[in-house]
Amino acid sequence: MIKVGIIGASGYTGAELARILCNHPEVEISVATSRQYAGRSISDIFQNLRGKVKVICENLPVDELCQRADIFFTAVPHKTAMDLVPVLLAAGKKVIDLSADFRLRDVAIYEQWYQPHSSSQLLKEAVYGLPELYRQHIAKCRLVANPGCYPTSIILGLAPLLKADAILPQTIIADSKSGTSGAGRAAQIGTLFCEVHDGFRPYKVGRAHRHTPEIEQELSELAGQTVSVTFTPHLLPISRGILSTVYATLAPGVNRQDLDEIYRQQYAPEPFIRLLEDDVFPATQFVRGSNFCDISFKIDPATHRVIIMSAIDNIVKGASGQAIQNMNIMCGFQETAGLGIVPLFP
Amino acid sequence: MIKVGIIGASGYTGAELARILCNHPEVEISVATSRQYAGRSISDIFQNLRGKVKVICENLPVDELCQRADIFFTAVPHKTAMDLVPVLLAAGKKVIDLSADFRLRDVAIYEQWYQPHSSSQLLKEAVYGLPELYRQHIAKCRLVANPGCYPTSIILGLAPLLKADAILPQTIIADSKSGTSGAGRAAQIGTLFCEVHDGFRPYKVGRAHRHTPEIEQELSELAGQTVSVTFTPHLLPISRGILSTVYATLAPGVNRQDLDEIYRQQYAPEPFIRLLEDDVFPATQFVRGSNFCDISFKIDPATHRVIIMSAIDNIVKGASGQAIQNMNIMCGFQETAGLGIVPLFP
Amino acid sequence: MIKVGIIGASGYTGAELARILCNHPEVEISVATSRQYAGRSISDIFQNLRGKVKVICENLPVDELCQRADIFFTAVPHKTAMDLVPVLLAAGKKVIDLSADFRLRDVAIYEQWYQPHSSSQLLKEAVYGLPELYRQHIAKCRLVANPGCYPTSIILGLAPLLKADAILPQTIIADSKSGTSGAGRAAQIGTLFCEVHDGFRPYKVGRAHRHTPEIEQELSELAGQTVSVTFTPHLLPISRGILSTVYATLAPGVNRQDLDEIYRQQYAPEPFIRLLEDDVFPATQFVRGSNFCDISFKIDPATHRVIIMSAIDNIVKGASGQAIQNMNIMCGFQETAGLGIVPLFP
Amino acid sequence: MIKVGIIGASGYTGAELARILCNHPEVEISVATSRQYAGRSISDIFQNLRGKVKVICENLPVDELCQRADIFFTAVPHKTAMDLVPVLLAAGKKVIDLSADFRLRDVAIYEQWYQPHSSSQLLKEAVYGLPELYRQHIAKCRLVANPGCYPTSIILGLAPLLKADAILPQTIIADSKSGTSGAGRAAQIGTLFCEVHDGFRPYKVGRAHRHTPEIEQELSELAGQTVSVTFTPHLLPISRGILSTVYATLAPGVNRQDLDEIYRQQYAPEPFIRLLEDDVFPATQFVRGSNFCDISFKIDPATHRVIIMSAIDNIVKGASGQAIQNMNIMCGFQETAGLGIVPLFP
Repeated sequence: MIKVGIIGASGYTGAELARILCNHPEVEISVATSRQYAGRSISDIFQNLRGKVKVICENLPVDELCQRADIFFTAVPHKTAMDLVPVLLAAGKKVIDLSADFRLRDVAIYEQWYQPHSSSQLLKEAVYGLPELYRQHIAKCRLVANPGCYPTSIILGLAPLLKADAILPQTIIADSKSGTSGAGRAAQIGTLFCEVHDGFRPYKVGRAHRHTPEIEQELSELAGQTVSVTFTPHLLPISRGILSTVYATLAPGVNRQDLDEIYRQQYAPEPFIRLLEDDVFPATQFVRGSNFCDISFKIDPATHRVIIMSAIDNIVKGASGQAIQNMNIMCGFQETAGLGIVPLFP
Repeated sequence: MIKVGIIGASGYTGAELARILCNHPEVEISVATSRQYAGRSISDIFQNLRGKVKVICENLPVDELCQRADIFFTAVPHKTAMDLVPVLLAAGKKVIDLSADFRLRDVAIYEQWYQPHSSSQLLKEAVYGLPELYRQHIAKCRLVANPGCYPTSIILGLAPLLKADAILPQTIIADSKSGTSGAGRAAQIGTLFCEVHDGFRPYKVGRAHRHTPEIEQELSELAGQTVSVTFTPHLLPISRGILSTVYATLAPGVNRQDLDEIYRQQYAPEPFIRLLEDDVFPATQFVRGSNFCDISFKIDPATHRVIIMSAIDNIVKGASGQAIQNMNIMCGFQETAGLGIVPLFP
Repeated sequence: MIKVGIIGASGYTGAELARILCNHPEVEISVATSRQYAGRSISDIFQNLRGKVKVICENLPVDELCQRADIFFTAVPHKTAMDLVPVLLAAGKKVIDLSADFRLRDVAIYEQWYQPHSSSQLLKEAVYGLPELYRQHIAKCRLVANPGCYPTSIILGLAPLLKADAILPQTIIADSKSGTSGAGRAAQIGTLFCEVHDGFRPYKVGRAHRHTPEIEQELSELAGQTVSVTFTPHLLPISRGILSTVYATLAPGVNRQDLDEIYRQQYAPEPFIRLLEDDVFPATQFVRGSNFCDISFKIDPATHRVIIMSAIDNIVKGASGQAIQNMNIMCGFQETAGLGIVPLFP
Repeated sequence: MIKVGIIGASGYTGAELARILCNHPEVEISVATSRQYAGRSISDIFQNLRGKVKVICENLPVDELCQRADIFFTAVPHKTAMDLVPVLLAAGKKVIDLSADFRLRDVAIYEQWYQPHSSSQLLKEAVYGLPELYRQHIAKCRLVANPGCYPTSIILGLAPLLKADAILPQTIIADSKSGTSGAGRAAQIGTLFCEVHDGFRPYKVGRAHRHTPEIEQELSELAGQTVSVTFTPHLLPISRGILSTVYATLAPGVNRQDLDEIYRQQYAPEPFIRLLEDDVFPATQFVRGSNFCDISFKIDPATHRVIIMSAIDNIVKGASGQAIQNMNIMCGFQETAGLGIVPLFP
């Protein structure tokens, strides 16, 4: 059993790591940290984990932490991560960072959207942890920048089409809808039950959401040109799930059969991508709790646009599940180890 | 008191007409029909109406119906409406039809999306009941085709910009999300609680939804040219509300101040349109139960696109509330009579 | 128009007062206070009120407040209320206090459940504001202690039976379920969307909830003897509504017809109580947004117990609506003025 | 691998059997039936199962069915089950029946609540499949009557106390709240999203629910005397979960320590029962998707009553999970095989 540490175990992504890892055949959670809940067991904070996760949260200096595990998940806010990660790496540990700190390769863009970066020397080394695109690099790296939830849903939907030049990159519009767990577990009026329930709203409209540069970085890489997207996030009255509806104009001459073939070639071997048949569309409830990304598309013949739809569980494939998929690759485990969870419906 | 009849009182829009009309100062519900619930009081079917609505549902031939009211709401499925409406008009009654039967002015388009039309002679006469666009015509007509819910939200958001040539009409994409009451009260697996709750999905993607030609008819009229839109409906796990997020490329040289001015000029006097300030976005929960349409917009500078957001309650401004607004105009009442209901939040 | 002041306008009950009062024919909101949101309009905090409520929140000393209105609603936490109310009364104002500070007539009991009472001289004078029981007293008083939400639902269900000695008072068990708005608008982890949604739980079980002494005081008064009840509150994943299921053993010889008659005698004239027929049970969704209390009962023949069910909207009949009903009585308005709102369903 | 058959695979309990069994280490689903969906794959009906369950639904005569599996789950309506089960048993198969047909040992009571029984000879043989009470019998039987969802939650909460004579059996009141999946997947108006969402209601109050005799049979068995309970079911706006709040008067002299000890003795070794600490109460969201039953209790000192609270997932421990637990026992597998699913929160 390999020993894994969860740094930041009292948020939803930390708890989700614990939920999945406690049934993982190759690892054990040897340490978990939480400043706020030090001394309390994880299953005390998250009563669903009772009887399954025995770990007590600790508040440890990073050098002590290093002695307690072989591989670490940093499920902490950005800024905190950039200070921790270099120390863990220097101690010879592998790190999967769930914050935004190592996702953007261009430090200037990072600093424009976030704040000054104290570990920018690692930006080149960090591998963007989307296994469907970067599996080979992940297998050999020691630092994975685990993708954001919105970017995961949008990039997985678009990647095959951009690689195949099947769409015009400057026409991309991503209309995304996320469950409320994406906002985290901080006590805020905006995410109180009564504010969210039985309602729906957009937020951070018009290049205001910090996932925008991450999406554009990856889409530009895939398109081989600088891509600007219009990205609109919305808040759904559900706990888990992101559904992205992405619009793009088809390249001249491209038709439905072409797209079918492109998706199949790229994704048929992927264990966590489910391509849906024609006229079957993804739904967040069918990926709930699982590491699947469901994808389908439809062409609007009158406008020659394609509508690509993808659904993930934002805290599984959009965060903790994908992080464990990355760990599996980094450690040479079977990529699906511990991730065979069937989506929960209804 | 003018006597009004509700034909089709046992669906959600019928019940909503009753909810609003029972507090209306100028009218009384003199007759209500339901084949399925004949003999039962409306407040028996919809227990919220207990003590407020005393009417008993009847199953009457249309000629008897004509003797029981001065103005009729036909809240029946399309096809049924087209057979009823001519008889009511011939008896000298005013009619607000909530079905789709009289919304499309081109009978060929109607028949392509629905079925043969038995009353196509009335298509020219029927006035599309969007008061913000056609108030003068509504005041003088005897037949209003009450708009669909999705079209109401999309057209109200776009109308000022299309009239002012502020956007490029061929770039319009409407990503709409609707509460489940839009699917009606028929017993179907797809709208069972367990199928919808805690989930989200698109449906009828890619020119498959029957509101598409209605949207395109009205946008084309406003743009002065044939407009094709990409329209994607989604199902929200909420009871009431539609939020449309509409994308379009700005005409060259148009900026935020222009749009502000355009919206203000068109909508400042409108009693049921609330323009939101910069960086305040509409939310379905803030229009719940009311006849308001909340609108705001945001420009994405990198792509020169504008994102227009509008929220309505789909069974008020998107159906029964707008129908009563039309009735008020047709009868010379104050346009807001009975419609002063404040949105219910939380 | 009488001038009313809302002290504490930024909570859910404050907003609900504004929602109802803005359509009230006899009063206008002349002042509203909020420490946290001073300078911002109420409709800025609660966007549903946009266009309906123009008042700006202020942070005023109580003596200035006194000059701004004739009657005050104190929608502030307990402890805060007990300091404010004497000053308002001394200035000749009428007060409806929505806190718990003046509900318990016995200061010892108050201090056992809350904290020391600084205005205990007013406890005798304050009238418990349940119009169905104390209408005559309310009409003549200057200080109403507006009942708690759970007590309203439980007391209204039991009052006729206790008065008529139809049940054994020592057998009462009240199993109550409340929507989340009852927890207020404070930012807390426990009422975040993700913690409450798609879940259900009891809380403060076994004489731990502060509404217990209030319920027992009123039931004892009605029974003419000291009554101890077992009261269990639960948290529902809905915004509004309380449903209380109350169990009691019938007095010997009492049957269904007796209970029917007892309820009808007491409640038939009540404008806000709706007695349901046999085998029709109340539901929170049928009183949503309204001042109604729906009541029905059923006898379990095998155990000679009666099950009494009552449903209210916790922030209308359970708080702000009842407060306005009390205001109407105190001011000599029609008791239903402004309260004709039809429940919103679906 | 043992071959298992699911008879009635297109309902929620059938789908849930498939969800759990597809990850079970000892069995494979070799046949599944559905009249309505014959020819379609289960994962077509329940898209969550896509990629995990490959079985195609068939509509087979029972004799052919017998050749296709070694053990059968009958997830069909009562009445249908009583005709199928004898044939399966005669063919030497083991059967776990999820209907009500073999739960009541007294045929007269069955026929009073349901309809004439065509296989009453099996009632004596069938073992009531609550492993925590009847594990030894289950291990040796060929027919398990899988318990109802409400009875599971109520009986598990009460069993230790009744066995230990710690409560007075005639004082039991069970106030239960269930998620909507308990109503099944039939298209009905009453369980449409808009009818259930954001609402709460009791139903079948006062000895009207068919789970009443099942509860009384088992509680009487445990108490060693005939027990009548008052049982009130309620409908929660959640998909999964039952929370039962059960009231009983303590036997003289019994205190908290006694109860602690009684529960610990009985349940400490149980793999699927989690006893919560003092002042921690169960919640449906913490057992969601799992086979756990969470239990805690609280004493109301003023009335000498105990309040027992238990939470299960109604379609796991309340149906399909418990059925698989029974299969594990019948087949000599580890009792927890395939049932290690961690509850999904949030």
